[in-house]
Amino acid sequence: MNIRIKDDTEHGNGTIYSFINCTILTMDNEDHYYPSGTIVIENDRIVDIGSSQDIVTRGHVIDMGNKIVLPGFINTHTHSPSPLFRGMADDLSLMDWLNKKLWPAEKNLTGEIAYWGTSQTCLEFLESGITTFADQYFYSESVAKAVETSGLRGFIAPSVFTNGSPETKDTIQAAVDFIEKYKGKEENTLIYPCIGPHAPYSCSSDVLKAVVEIASSYDLLIHTHISETMDENREIYELTGLTPTQYLDSLGILDQKVLAAHCIHLNQKDMEIFKEKKVRVSYNPVSNLKLVSGIMPFKELREKGILVSLGTDGAQSNNSLDLIKDLKTGVLIQKQQYNDATFISAKEALKMVTINGAKALDMDHEIGSLEKGKKADIIAMDMNKTNMNPLHRSVVSNLHSAIVYSADGSNVSDVIVNGKILMKDRQLMSMKRQEILKQTQKGAEVILKKAGLL
Amino acid sequence: MNIRIKDDTEHGNGTIYSFINCTILTMDNEDHYYPSGTIVIENDRIVDIGSSQDIVTRGHVIDMGNKIVLPGFINTHTHSPSPLFRGMADDLSLMDWLNKKLWPAEKNLTGEIAYWGTSQTCLEFLESGITTFADQYFYSESVAKAVETSGLRGFIAPSVFTNGSPETKDTIQAAVDFIEKYKGKEENTLIYPCIGPHAPYSCSSDVLKAVVEIASSYDLLIHTHISETMDENREIYELTGLTPTQYLDSLGILDQKVLAAHCIHLNQKDMEIFKEKKVRVSYNPVSNLKLVSGIMPFKELREKGILVSLGTDGAQSNNSLDLIKDLKTGVLIQKQQYNDATFISAKEALKMVTINGAKALDMDHEIGSLEKGKKADIIAMDMNKTNMNPLHRSVVSNLHSAIVYSADGSNVSDVIVNGKILMKDRQLMSMKRQEILKQTQKGAEVILKKAGLL
Repeated sequence: MNIRIKDDTEHGNGTIYSFINCTILTMDNEDHYYPSGTIVIENDRIVDIGSSQDIVTRGHVIDMGNKIVLPGFINTHTHSPSPLFRGMADDLSLMDWLNKKLWPAEKNLTGEIAYWGTSQTCLEFLESGITTFADQYFYSESVAKAVETSGLRGFIAPSVFTNGSPETKDTIQAAVDFIEKYKGKEENTLIYPCIGPHAPYSCSSDVLKAVVEIASSYDLLIHTHISETMDENREIYELTGLTPTQYLDSLGILDQKVLAAHCIHLNQKDMEIFKEKKVRVSYNPVSNLKLVSGIMPFKELREKGILVSLGTDGAQSNNSLDLIKDLKTGVLIQKQQYNDATFISAKEALKMVTINGAKALDMDHEIGSLEKGKKADIIAMDMNKTNMNPLHRSVVSNLHSAIVYSADGSNVSDVIVNGKILMKDRQLMSMKRQEILKQTQKGAEVILKKAGLL
Repeated sequence: MNIRIKDDTEHGNGTIYSFINCTILTMDNEDHYYPSGTIVIENDRIVDIGSSQDIVTRGHVIDMGNKIVLPGFINTHTHSPSPLFRGMADDLSLMDWLNKKLWPAEKNLTGEIAYWGTSQTCLEFLESGITTFADQYFYSESVAKAVETSGLRGFIAPSVFTNGSPETKDTIQAAVDFIEKYKGKEENTLIYPCIGPHAPYSCSSDVLKAVVEIASSYDLLIHTHISETMDENREIYELTGLTPTQYLDSLGILDQKVLAAHCIHLNQKDMEIFKEKKVRVSYNPVSNLKLVSGIMPFKELREKGILVSLGTDGAQSNNSLDLIKDLKTGVLIQKQQYNDATFISAKEALKMVTINGAKALDMDHEIGSLEKGKKADIIAMDMNKTNMNPLHRSVVSNLHSAIVYSADGSNVSDVIVNGKILMKDRQLMSMKRQEILKQTQKGAEVILKKAGLL
């Protein structure tokens, strides 16, 4: 990366922007905080950041009016076309929900409808400050196309199932095709191919071994579900005599880079394996509560130094996709769980959705904090919103608290991904909102009607 | 109430409005739902409601563009000036929070600062669709003045403590003065005086007996806290050999109309008493989680037919005041608590913040549902918001789900209280937003600086 700084000059493929009057939470290792700061970006990178008096502004100067400026949020578990299934089946037991509602509807999905569902997800992410996310689903080419159009950074894992997906019988081949198409083009497309063995119970040992081969040869992140329910644990135990974690470990899965969603029903030995194999956990509190899957053992994971980031899961089981809203719920239920109001501070919570998310995706050298040389994935929150007032900028913990406990996604005013301004003062610069809403509505009606659910 | 209907005519003190193209959730006893409906209001009351083809429009006709129209939300527990203390002390144990932060700060409150803090609360309520709320705090005249200015409907209970409040040593006298000033003027002021013995541990038996006298002679609702923490239960047991519920009952408190916040640590006998004495419970899930007070035994209360409504509690312990956001958390933790995804449907949840709230305040003959003859306390939610898309109006449960599981207060577009339009397409018609934000910020800085917290 060759960073050239020129004064007041557009050049090459991009532009220099200086954002002044920022209240900057860097979320870096030293928790640098600049109550009155400036960030300079050039093309896709941050080239300067600090207190206003220390930074020379250059290029286009944008006054941020004291907005809180922080790294974009990172959502480490979702299923992108999921808004298509939003609110069609709530308050049901897991098996009724899957057998009678979700699976019959999913069967009617097409690539085009998945494209619009994913566009809807990207729109919701953008409007609530999520700049990077990890997806696991099928129709991955349609998903990737929508993500690329949105301008967000997407870690797209084609789901792999032994019995095929609604898209294809051969999910392994579909995954390889997808990976071949996108691998190596991450810098241009912002699409980072991964591989998504769905879960220990939906993938045979042969399929899981094939996944290991693919992940290893392409150097991919494996994105899977582990121990989401007690039923899963029982099923795997009956089949193998092992816990899901130990079973996956026995097949070599955990020797790869693994992002594991849910991770609720883990025993001590499972957690030791997570620690040793550096498995990255995606905590999905709202989905877990709604499907009564259980509450993730956060304290035990933290005591072992296991990395925990946050995921919304899909809209079919959340139903919102607002990560910062889920963060509050996720933190509060853990406080109650351990009967300790001091457990997880607002600052630690914020790290979960920024730098920890980046670490989960092996991207902490590029994103997750605002630092010189890192990618410009930046969001701003408007302090003039009613629900964050009053706000005391002289006390940094007050800002952490405002974001985690008072705010929601609607407080996010500006979003920059890879140096591109995608939302400015809630105005979308790239995405066609009305078209997306309309097409998603239309697509949802098609698949729900075909399934007899509408 | 003499309802006269005239066509296209302003008359008397008010105006006739016809709201057309409404998607109406009435929340009435028969769950009437009008996918394409009209509501006619005259002055402060609904005079006609139903399917569009059945209603003759008259007066000012306002096209609601298919927005979801429902009763205003009712928040049954808060402490109105509380945004002044927002985010100043989080992630602390209860005793550290109270002794080191909240109480030292509260000491510096003045009537004027309480006025602005309450105005901030009213602004947040209005912007998130809360049209009626129950407050318990001191500086009640300042609170009431702010509420009256806002146009919201406020059940204001002056807090009573044995050792006095930061406002006055004689909280009983202050309460009586307040009640005398406002009692009988509810129709004009929308201020409904109540009385608020703070809690069994902060009121002596003599004080509680005085409260019974006052409540009985003025026919007031008693708004109190019961069994919020195990420490409270232990303290009262050591003092009296009784549970807080049994202790309050022994003093005659529960023979009055009682709205009890929290109600977490109740035993079977307590709940039997609640049932027999028709105690109304305000469930405050987010505050309870944040202070690790515990989780209210919803199922046991429901099985006994005890009325449960919802409260945000104050911003010092929530920190948001967005009732509909709390509703989701409150429902989901109960599902997990009872390991039953079917426990509390979205429809039942919505009743908690509408008609059950009205019942808790003895106002279900006037508010809590949209019915001919009832007060016009009406809100609308914009279906064109990204986070509620897609939405299938042919399935009413889909609307319930969208409101409870996908929406938050920012989806509320219009608010009408007592027939007055207070917010139209997110534009405030009465409240001076910037002035309130500024004055609340200023007031918070004064009291926190005096307490050495800023």
